[in-house]
Amino acid sequence: MTPIDETHAIDLPCWVDGAIGHPDFPVQNLPFGIFSPGDGAARPGVAIGDHILDLSAIGDRLPDAVQPLLGDDSLNRIMALPAADRVALRRALSRLLCDRDAQPALAPALHAQADCSLHLPARIGDYTDFYVGIHHATNVGTLFRPDNPLLPNYKYVPIGYHGRASSVRPSGVPVVRPKGQSKAPDAAEPRFGPSARLDYELELGIWIGQGNELGDPIPVQNAADHIAGFCLLNDWSARDFQAWEYVPLGPFLAKNFHSTISPWVITPEALAPFRQAQPARPQGDPAPLPYLLDAQDQRHGGLALDLAVSVRTAKMRDAGMPPFRLSQSRAEAMYWTAAQIVTHHASNGCNLTPGDLLGTGTISGPDQGSLGSLLEMTQGGKTPVILPSGERRSFLEDGDEVLLEARAHREGFASIGFGECRATILPVRA
Amino acid sequence: MTPIDETHAIDLPCWVDGAIGHPDFPVQNLPFGIFSPGDGAARPGVAIGDHILDLSAIGDRLPDAVQPLLGDDSLNRIMALPAADRVALRRALSRLLCDRDAQPALAPALHAQADCSLHLPARIGDYTDFYVGIHHATNVGTLFRPDNPLLPNYKYVPIGYHGRASSVRPSGVPVVRPKGQSKAPDAAEPRFGPSARLDYELELGIWIGQGNELGDPIPVQNAADHIAGFCLLNDWSARDFQAWEYVPLGPFLAKNFHSTISPWVITPEALAPFRQAQPARPQGDPAPLPYLLDAQDQRHGGLALDLAVSVRTAKMRDAGMPPFRLSQSRAEAMYWTAAQIVTHHASNGCNLTPGDLLGTGTISGPDQGSLGSLLEMTQGGKTPVILPSGERRSFLEDGDEVLLEARAHREGFASIGFGECRATILPVRA
Repeated sequence: MTPIDETHAIDLPCWVDGAIGHPDFPVQNLPFGIFSPGDGAARPGVAIGDHILDLSAIGDRLPDAVQPLLGDDSLNRIMALPAADRVALRRALSRLLCDRDAQPALAPALHAQADCSLHLPARIGDYTDFYVGIHHATNVGTLFRPDNPLLPNYKYVPIGYHGRASSVRPSGVPVVRPKGQSKAPDAAEPRFGPSARLDYELELGIWIGQGNELGDPIPVQNAADHIAGFCLLNDWSARDFQAWEYVPLGPFLAKNFHSTISPWVITPEALAPFRQAQPARPQGDPAPLPYLLDAQDQRHGGLALDLAVSVRTAKMRDAGMPPFRLSQSRAEAMYWTAAQIVTHHASNGCNLTPGDLLGTGTISGPDQGSLGSLLEMTQGGKTPVILPSGERRSFLEDGDEVLLEARAHREGFASIGFGECRATILPVRA
Repeated sequence: MTPIDETHAIDLPCWVDGAIGHPDFPVQNLPFGIFSPGDGAARPGVAIGDHILDLSAIGDRLPDAVQPLLGDDSLNRIMALPAADRVALRRALSRLLCDRDAQPALAPALHAQADCSLHLPARIGDYTDFYVGIHHATNVGTLFRPDNPLLPNYKYVPIGYHGRASSVRPSGVPVVRPKGQSKAPDAAEPRFGPSARLDYELELGIWIGQGNELGDPIPVQNAADHIAGFCLLNDWSARDFQAWEYVPLGPFLAKNFHSTISPWVITPEALAPFRQAQPARPQGDPAPLPYLLDAQDQRHGGLALDLAVSVRTAKMRDAGMPPFRLSQSRAEAMYWTAAQIVTHHASNGCNLTPGDLLGTGTISGPDQGSLGSLLEMTQGGKTPVILPSGERRSFLEDGDEVLLEARAHREGFASIGFGECRATILPVRA
């Protein structure tokens, strides 16, 4: 596991205005992304406070291994570096951003985030979504299959399915309400039209770093070495389409019209202080099969992350009201670790490639205030949520904006955050 | 629909040795691919008889629109061209290959296929597999869900799911037997190990040409314009893994360890003479919903293609025996047309991109000699196939080679073929 080192010290004297104590991006975080300053070309950068440090402008101060990659417009090749190179880059950046003598040279490479656009951090080769939030799986299973909520394979198999890579977009890109087929329980035939049950899903994303060759599995002991970072992921879902189309081959058009991610890649190094034991399985649950079981991963493979979903309707926005917090949950609701997810995915020899994105699936907690989707919060639409504006929501309406957040806290360490994962629903296109 | 023109004339005087009457690649076919001559760089080419014409070597004789794309090592940008540009390229190639005066200049650009390697024709952004073979869906449904073989959505929804793009390989690349979880019906717990029920699936692949923007559906009337060509696809399947993992989110590790495609892109132009009416739906079946219904597509959107699967075991190979034909079927067993597949995929605004690959799903015919998988032929492994070598096969064994073929015939036209889609099973890796 990634060690805690001097880059995690709580008292680092970062010279960037506002970076010390920044809720998301203090110098202890240093997430990577792809940004454009103004109308400039897309390039690699690092978030620091409310700024972005343009790595392409300071290449000569960075380790040799990354210098040839700083002209790229995606992080794929940087993600593919061995962890040791990523650690060296982090250390160099931490030193530079805490060294007053470096400030004059570096200051011109700092851009206000507000003046930049953020892109997808990588060209996503394949996107896979998992289903490791056990409370979510139980809740949704109860709605779709009341007699049979949690299927017999769930506690053995990190259930996943392939999603659509082409429709993943960074935070801020609006979501067009999809059309599709749905069938009311009492209707003789399905209809085709705009989704009436549009929902969000609160997920984490896992960025694959080094890949594996086709045919070569990734042992669970090595799986962490294949993870380049983490993000937030909103797996927008049209529940009416999903209920009609999902048998027997799984969700398809109900999910693939758009997925939103937070654009900053939060590295395993940044998360090192926030590792924890994977929660013990409840008494009576089977042990993971040996290929998924590693003592080190069980001790340190869990993530201590606070997650939250907020919504702001058009009416709330017009009235100047802030987003309303719908729920809060924690990553420890994951039944499988990130390492187990990676190992399972490659266990049949499936080749993962740098820049692949894996979603965890919706991370709901065990109680009403911790549910990661409206489907769960409203019990399939039956009990609408009441918002501070007086509006009611069974599912999302046009103009609604959904915001996902993740933050990590630990006594004695600087808190870090993932940055925003937000998007607004646009009306269906004619 | 693509018109029949002078490039389809049966008596074209092609000067390439052996091209006239070639079972796959007469001058009426002209499929595109990416090849390397010897150990040369990958480049675009066209199959003609037993040869490949190196397009990068004759750019100055080809239409302006394609000239800048001939240095590419994938066909993605050529696939993205409007159909009119592809037609112009086809016409230019047809004329050159039938013009004796052009022979001296072109001959140096011809390479024997036997001396070349063939690559994936495109960087596949996303790979989606459908399930439009209605006999296959019924047969498999009967095995997995005896009480409920064809689900209520089947005749309304072109059922599909996302597959794995990274593990698609061209014909000839061996398939490593995958490991995975399976659970015997009488076992208390699943086990992890090599698949004991490895199978092939006979499918067609559809190459996406021009894409659509996220949020903008593709009307069925325009869908044919978004198809750059067709190929064969073997969707290798581990039936033991599939049965255990597929609920509720569909097949995943049972399928994503490898998919084999034929490397030549058979264009819509080449297939123009082999279009036919989509078979009438049986009495009592619902009409397609309006967004999937186009009179022109119903009249011409079907494909008159003969499909076949053969197998050759290591023992047969050692004895010099040819591959044994296991089954033959026809593309008219597709319940939905290629245009309906494309339109449905984009109906929610999902963006398709040039070089995306869509599989049809297994194309089985209605009777025993026309089944596109061993699962169906052996009734789930219960009635093994007897091979000419005396060997029995319930599922594939190490050393078995599977060959898929597709050919189109029509009185008054030159027959064309898709070329080979073959691969051999290697033992599981330690």
